[in-house]
Amino acid sequence: MTRLDAVRAAVRAEGLDGFIVPRADEHLGEYVPPAAERLAWLTGFTGSAGLAIVLATRAAVFTDGRYTLQLEQEADVALWERCHVTETPPAAWLKANAPAGARIGYDARLISEEALARFAESGVALVAAANPIDAVWIDRPPPPAAPALPHPLAYAGQVSAEKRALLAAELTRAGQDAAVLSDPHGIAWLLNIRGADLDYTPVALADALLYSDGRVDLFIDPAKLPEVTRAWLGNGVAVAGPERLAAALDTLVGRRVRVDPAGTPAWFAQRLRAAGAEVVAGPDPCLLPKACKNPAEQAGARAAHGRDAIALCRFLAWLEIGAAGTTELSAADRLLSLRRELPGFRGESFPAIAGAGEHGAIIHYRASAGSNRALQPGEVFLIDSGAQYEDGTTDVTRTVLIGPGTPDAALRERYTRVLKGHIALAALIFPEGIAGPHIDGFARAALWRAGLDYDHGTGHGVGSFLSVHEGPVGISRAARMVPLAPGMILSNEPGFYLPGQYGIRLENLLLVRREDIPGAGRPFLGFETLTLAPFDRRLIAEALLDATERAWLDTYHARVLAAVGPQLDAATREWLAASCAPLG
Amino acid sequence: MTRLDAVRAAVRAEGLDGFIVPRADEHLGEYVPPAAERLAWLTGFTGSAGLAIVLATRAAVFTDGRYTLQLEQEADVALWERCHVTETPPAAWLKANAPAGARIGYDARLISEEALARFAESGVALVAAANPIDAVWIDRPPPPAAPALPHPLAYAGQVSAEKRALLAAELTRAGQDAAVLSDPHGIAWLLNIRGADLDYTPVALADALLYSDGRVDLFIDPAKLPEVTRAWLGNGVAVAGPERLAAALDTLVGRRVRVDPAGTPAWFAQRLRAAGAEVVAGPDPCLLPKACKNPAEQAGARAAHGRDAIALCRFLAWLEIGAAGTTELSAADRLLSLRRELPGFRGESFPAIAGAGEHGAIIHYRASAGSNRALQPGEVFLIDSGAQYEDGTTDVTRTVLIGPGTPDAALRERYTRVLKGHIALAALIFPEGIAGPHIDGFARAALWRAGLDYDHGTGHGVGSFLSVHEGPVGISRAARMVPLAPGMILSNEPGFYLPGQYGIRLENLLLVRREDIPGAGRPFLGFETLTLAPFDRRLIAEALLDATERAWLDTYHARVLAAVGPQLDAATREWLAASCAPLG
Repeated sequence: MTRLDAVRAAVRAEGLDGFIVPRADEHLGEYVPPAAERLAWLTGFTGSAGLAIVLATRAAVFTDGRYTLQLEQEADVALWERCHVTETPPAAWLKANAPAGARIGYDARLISEEALARFAESGVALVAAANPIDAVWIDRPPPPAAPALPHPLAYAGQVSAEKRALLAAELTRAGQDAAVLSDPHGIAWLLNIRGADLDYTPVALADALLYSDGRVDLFIDPAKLPEVTRAWLGNGVAVAGPERLAAALDTLVGRRVRVDPAGTPAWFAQRLRAAGAEVVAGPDPCLLPKACKNPAEQAGARAAHGRDAIALCRFLAWLEIGAAGTTELSAADRLLSLRRELPGFRGESFPAIAGAGEHGAIIHYRASAGSNRALQPGEVFLIDSGAQYEDGTTDVTRTVLIGPGTPDAALRERYTRVLKGHIALAALIFPEGIAGPHIDGFARAALWRAGLDYDHGTGHGVGSFLSVHEGPVGISRAARMVPLAPGMILSNEPGFYLPGQYGIRLENLLLVRREDIPGAGRPFLGFETLTLAPFDRRLIAEALLDATERAWLDTYHARVLAAVGPQLDAATREWLAASCAPLG
Repeated sequence: MTRLDAVRAAVRAEGLDGFIVPRADEHLGEYVPPAAERLAWLTGFTGSAGLAIVLATRAAVFTDGRYTLQLEQEADVALWERCHVTETPPAAWLKANAPAGARIGYDARLISEEALARFAESGVALVAAANPIDAVWIDRPPPPAAPALPHPLAYAGQVSAEKRALLAAELTRAGQDAAVLSDPHGIAWLLNIRGADLDYTPVALADALLYSDGRVDLFIDPAKLPEVTRAWLGNGVAVAGPERLAAALDTLVGRRVRVDPAGTPAWFAQRLRAAGAEVVAGPDPCLLPKACKNPAEQAGARAAHGRDAIALCRFLAWLEIGAAGTTELSAADRLLSLRRELPGFRGESFPAIAGAGEHGAIIHYRASAGSNRALQPGEVFLIDSGAQYEDGTTDVTRTVLIGPGTPDAALRERYTRVLKGHIALAALIFPEGIAGPHIDGFARAALWRAGLDYDHGTGHGVGSFLSVHEGPVGISRAARMVPLAPGMILSNEPGFYLPGQYGIRLENLLLVRREDIPGAGRPFLGFETLTLAPFDRRLIAEALLDATERAWLDTYHARVLAAVGPQLDAATREWLAASCAPLG
């Protein structure tokens, strides 16, 4: 009996005609622990975004353009229809394939109310039910149980009690008695703790309730809280096991409770309504303050980027001087091992993307033993990587020429257009009120002029020793209309991809700061570039840069040399000095 | 007894505690006929955007920043609280001032469901009721009764039957049986007719129902339809008096009917639901196709702008050479009289804004006998005007130096920054899918860099011998996310305003067109500038323009000279040649 057959039997046993299986855990984040890899267990598909629907005789897996090839390789075509999520939306597939009056189950802990609403047009009856996979997955791994530890005040910059008081005042102003916190990143920020339950992201999986008097009920496996952390949390935070969460929601009879309809599992609002609470839709109250880094977090980000730059410059020098015989995997390993030497290093912030030649054109390429290829002279090599340090999170992409060899004019022109976009965004000055969708085009206009573009966003928010992909702001056409504000950290990563040939991406992190402009009648903002590493001048067509762009690049390179040079050995420093010399 | 007292008595007689009086007619457009100026009759306030709320003992008028001063001058403070609509939203005022359980009336023909929904938070019971003003306004003017005439195919470019068939197919695809058309602009476009019921906008006030088989029921005073127009409308359009509209809606039992929740009075959806129809929220089906001008309409726009340019250039030459003793009003009259000489001229497309010196800083300034001032040497003069021609609608702003005199460096720098923004937008190339909010910043970035900005949108849609302000697209931070598409006409009008001193605005109309870029892997769009008139080179700080901007300006000026020069008398042609010479 296949796993699919076993799940179908469990679905039938519940009196259902089908079941929806998203790639999600109880916190709806980007990474999930092995215990929550239900979609991969059932379908074989291991991509980070997907959803399956199981009906009595048909079943389908849906993913987006990043993963369509991987889906075809991983999900058995004899069992699964493999669908592109925008070409064949799950709701449309369900409408076409579910019997009239079908009752389709879902696990309300694994899907938001907003995601559920997208199934409205399918015309089926959606039924919250026990997860049939959990009933038949025998060798399911245990949930993660890494200890949650204090995030020191030197890095956090503000005591938790003060953060809680500010959010509580916001709830009070809004006439709300409590807020559901189902996002472990928000909880980590609010309580100044960090964990190790997930790869790449230092959070402890937990839920919490924040009350309008500033108290917090934290629902977490007590085994994950050593004594030092319990003392750190203090009296304002009551700790209980996750099994107590439902009962705590049930006590909120008659209370107004804020629940984020996009980021919180539907179960919370359903349980609260059933208990007689009034559910008010609103964003997770941690989301915006977490995004606006305070001075200590900003200082931490600068310090972390300053150290990260040492590994980056050593790596780039080695690539240019001594990398004969290197492969994608060995190059990424080299950069990782250089970062490991740095104080405060706690791991990668995401799986590195190291693509040589045509692999660089695969935007979410991940080198494997099977795909790994040597870096060939004359090709370009794209490496997008980042690290978690105890004081900050980094994310940087450079595209370099593998020597010896001379890049052709078209490649240099395209690299330079990407660089022009990167500079246009980095140097932009804009008034308060401007959001990501308003400025995305500045990073693209130089490409657009030549009929070129890239099919990904220009920037994402970045956490402070937290997720490298952090809301609520982003720089893209479809990002949320949340105004940029001082202290936010965002990536600046325009690119260009020529399928089958090469990829170019140039990424620094930016810190939003106030700009004091004499005589300005209103507050203006701009960016401080945090990342410090040279751009490959062999790939720059200098004639395409105007005077402003050349000045920006020379100033940036001088800053890199001044900050990083003194910390390098003589040979690497010499390489850096040459790489950072003013343009010809 | 004041008018307010009389209305209060009528409100009480209906058993209501108050009434909402918007500045609107039954079509919710920008201009309303005198018969619909209920807000002005009741409050004295004549601005084009406002709303009053009458309660038993208090009453308030709300408007936006453009009209706060005018509101204070026009509405009697003894009777009316004068409120800024965003500082004191009407719903908040109502919540604070209406008695608990209050029943507040509104005229469902004068407010959309979307606007009504904004009163939800006020906590009062909203009651659709007969309009109390209509009961007490004795000397109310009659409704307009101008004839509706055929809009020739040479200008319309597509027969109505074909347009109706296309929209009907869209309704069928969406599973809708009919759509409400309450916007006379949409009806004018769909039926290829033009009227004269309103100032500045050549529409005939009417409502219509479009059915999924392509038939239209048109509800209009039959006296407004001469025989030639009835014949022009053809068999697919059934004409009935407005008094038949309600009964026609009542027949739609069990049908799915599209109603625009933002643009259509709430009365339609209420009546349809009461009759047992299913109301489906959706945009007026005319909105998007009307915005995308067909080749004949594009040719008409070019021709109309070509003629308009003759008046503009004659006017600008006269201003520079022979305008001693001119005032704001006499200058605007001169431009109007020059336009009257042009073939196809049908009137102004909006009331001209002619502001000298400090008046230029008042964004919606309208010169009156009381405010009129002479054009002083050394000052700048801003004139924003437009015309309706039978083949197209124009809208243009120029800011010029009144000579003799030398502008100071700060003024020239600011003028040049506005010009740089104008050029950046005019020259932008962008892929399909981009909407107004994505490109608004390009017109502002040169100002932002100096800590400057302007508090209005950069561009609005423009009709084809229709409204000079046309949806659904616009270029501003808050415009709708509707992708720009070939054939759309938009204004490009960045500005800068120094209160008490001067205003700068530079406006041309743009036509969205495809850009063929060799090797581009996707469709790209750009703009053709329609307006032809020189920019005042005395105000340009040439050193601030980069090579690309200088090339754009020289090319544009050469085009103006080539197109307009041959149609001018010798003296004006000489002036134009000097004004259009390449930059030094």
